[in-house]
Amino acid sequence: MSLDALRSRLDTAAVLTDPDIMETYRQDWARAPHPGTPLAVVRAGSTQDVREVMRWATEYGVPVVPRGAGSGLSGGATAVDGGIVLSTELMRDIAVDPVTRTATIQPGLLNAEVKAAAAEHGLWYPPDPSSYEICSIGGNVATNAGGLCCVKYGVTTDYVLGMTVVLADGTAVELGGPRLKDTAGLSLTKLFVGSEGTLGIVTEVIVRLVPQQPPRSTVVGVFPDVVACSETVLAITRRTRPAMLEFMDNATIRAVEADLRMGLDTSAGAMLLAQSDLTGPDRAAEAGFMATAFTEHGATEVFSTDDPDEGEQFTVARRAAFTSLGKTGSLLLEDVGVPLPALPALVEGIETISTQRGVPIALVAHAGDGNTHPIIVSSDHDPDHAERARIAFGEVMDLAIGLGGTITGEHGVGRLKKDWLPDQLGDDVMALTRRIKDALDPQGLLNPGAML
Amino acid sequence: MSLDALRSRLDTAAVLTDPDIMETYRQDWARAPHPGTPLAVVRAGSTQDVREVMRWATEYGVPVVPRGAGSGLSGGATAVDGGIVLSTELMRDIAVDPVTRTATIQPGLLNAEVKAAAAEHGLWYPPDPSSYEICSIGGNVATNAGGLCCVKYGVTTDYVLGMTVVLADGTAVELGGPRLKDTAGLSLTKLFVGSEGTLGIVTEVIVRLVPQQPPRSTVVGVFPDVVACSETVLAITRRTRPAMLEFMDNATIRAVEADLRMGLDTSAGAMLLAQSDLTGPDRAAEAGFMATAFTEHGATEVFSTDDPDEGEQFTVARRAAFTSLGKTGSLLLEDVGVPLPALPALVEGIETISTQRGVPIALVAHAGDGNTHPIIVSSDHDPDHAERARIAFGEVMDLAIGLGGTITGEHGVGRLKKDWLPDQLGDDVMALTRRIKDALDPQGLLNPGAML
Repeated sequence: MSLDALRSRLDTAAVLTDPDIMETYRQDWARAPHPGTPLAVVRAGSTQDVREVMRWATEYGVPVVPRGAGSGLSGGATAVDGGIVLSTELMRDIAVDPVTRTATIQPGLLNAEVKAAAAEHGLWYPPDPSSYEICSIGGNVATNAGGLCCVKYGVTTDYVLGMTVVLADGTAVELGGPRLKDTAGLSLTKLFVGSEGTLGIVTEVIVRLVPQQPPRSTVVGVFPDVVACSETVLAITRRTRPAMLEFMDNATIRAVEADLRMGLDTSAGAMLLAQSDLTGPDRAAEAGFMATAFTEHGATEVFSTDDPDEGEQFTVARRAAFTSLGKTGSLLLEDVGVPLPALPALVEGIETISTQRGVPIALVAHAGDGNTHPIIVSSDHDPDHAERARIAFGEVMDLAIGLGGTITGEHGVGRLKKDWLPDQLGDDVMALTRRIKDALDPQGLLNPGAML
Repeated sequence: MSLDALRSRLDTAAVLTDPDIMETYRQDWARAPHPGTPLAVVRAGSTQDVREVMRWATEYGVPVVPRGAGSGLSGGATAVDGGIVLSTELMRDIAVDPVTRTATIQPGLLNAEVKAAAAEHGLWYPPDPSSYEICSIGGNVATNAGGLCCVKYGVTTDYVLGMTVVLADGTAVELGGPRLKDTAGLSLTKLFVGSEGTLGIVTEVIVRLVPQQPPRSTVVGVFPDVVACSETVLAITRRTRPAMLEFMDNATIRAVEADLRMGLDTSAGAMLLAQSDLTGPDRAAEAGFMATAFTEHGATEVFSTDDPDEGEQFTVARRAAFTSLGKTGSLLLEDVGVPLPALPALVEGIETISTQRGVPIALVAHAGDGNTHPIIVSSDHDPDHAERARIAFGEVMDLAIGLGGTITGEHGVGRLKKDWLPDQLGDDVMALTRRIKDALDPQGLLNPGAML
């Protein structure tokens, strides 16, 4: 029995085969259809554990699905039949170096914990998925996660300077390091960021940190409709670079208000949430410019505050969108992005799809960088409705691709979106992708079925 | 004759075989030893030209050395015998989109021209090699070039969002696009940045731009020695993130002063040049903090100015280091970097090597990010001295590797440093690199001899 061979190689890892425990590792938050039943779940405790798992997997030809916190939204961690689910949740060390302004982190630490450890040294790790309190840094690296800060501060890859990664055959390689500049050899570190566990398993990551941000001013605008919002976004990004520029449509506002009871205006057609983190008089100037832009583009109400706590409450509302909407039905979560000038066309097109298919599509967006989350609210109890929702899910991606956009800005392709990847990338880029995958994982053991 | 077959395929490109013209394309600024004699120089006018060259090269098995402006410092564009030198110098279009804050650029445009085009829209392209007036954006992408801004604003890869790249077989692929967030598929865009023309030829690049920087305050400090300087750097980076933090040693100061006659203190042991681009009262506070740190760490003179032009004069002096030192002898240019805490040890170790080998090593550095340029001044007329300089060149890289650093922070490996790359990366990373190279360029046609 090959699992005994695996157990005998592992020092610190737990090999779990209890069906009840394994059941909780078959899916991530995406709840992709038809999850497999794994042979075992391995909770790795070290890079060496991960090496041993991959050596064993190579020997026995067993597929391995790496898993972080399981908060993924594209089915990147869905279990496969007869495979290993390799969880990094127990690998949670961090060391912050305030002189180089870097942190060396094991993959299981949560994003919020990374931020907290940095803050102890007056430093900041910017990437901030809405799920930052429950998602792990390993998953962030695997998906090249984004968040609300990206409009000004970029995405995960912009902060990853190095990593330890275990390859398909169990070799562990150290790439990059705590150096802001290092161009020796190919940019392998960056290749592994966003590779969704298909090329290797990241067991340690070195990120750069930046000085802690100053307090923010917040501007909130209530608009008659989402198109007015998206036109406002273009007027703002043409002139300034806010620290946050988010939007929520009426359906989202209503769901969040029903869930959190925080006094949002449920009659609003849509809402924009902007922040400035400039310093000195520039902050008031940027906030004032945005407030004026809101008004000029039809905002019926504009609220500004310099109180960081008050501003944070609106951010909490924005971050709650997924969970609040999840209480109104089953969700199909989109993550499409377009070049900014195409944002109004994307927003209008999504409304058309919603109308034509007769399925509600709520819309929240990191509007300032063109990354939107249309959220299709489906019904588990009505097969016809679920089918129309499934069709709309594909049509939203087709729409984004047609507008020169992407099927995923920050969640990853996983299993839910891989059928659309060739439509976006084209045959030649898919062939190039496949050449690299085959060169690094010739047996196809690493996260089979994800992305490719 | 196969060159006729090549000529017949090209519309806009010039195929040059005049020996006098070809002579000027055999070397870049690194003047690596033993350059080859190319079969022809092709000045491409379009992506299609580059595709045809690579199709022809694949058919006839001819190596191709891509070349930007020829200002490379590691021999990345040294010609090979019987190969094609493929110059992108004629491909110089740019389109700036102020709404998405991106620019789409052909590779031959110079870095300074990119900055100028961005500035017309109130935008800024940060990466700023000292050679920014003569180096091309294509070369910047190929080497993942840095500059003086990196301590705060990062390197080329942090700004590249997409590209068109021609592969070894002549296939042209479009990667990424004008989207700040796009995690669909592997991070291929980032893989090609810094690949030194060994994986493909970039024929168009999409970069993100940021709002134009505010005016800077400048603080200059004169120190008794370089070690005091490097200790000061650590004290500063531990607390703040300046927009520039550069250093020059006495040999460099003397060479620049002899060349430019701008009134530098040639008795100074070393000089630190720092800038703040914060806004409002924060700028004065940051500049004041740095001036105090200078004094506390032994600066014998500190000069501060809010006048951007006055500050720029010091920056010009810093940028002139290579050319000014070049007038004192033949140069072997280093580009080693270390994690910041190791900076004093690096600086001391370089002094030891200089003394032991009896060769002058001038030192300039992007000190704030740990990237140093030890410049070994050699003599063409004294073979023994040249040999000792060559030995010192290797010893400086050995020293950096031993301190956990890199053999190249921003110039690339090219042909001059490839013998040291395995020492830095190790056998496993070299094998991984080779697997990717072989998957993308199985015939080994793209820039053979560079990096690998």
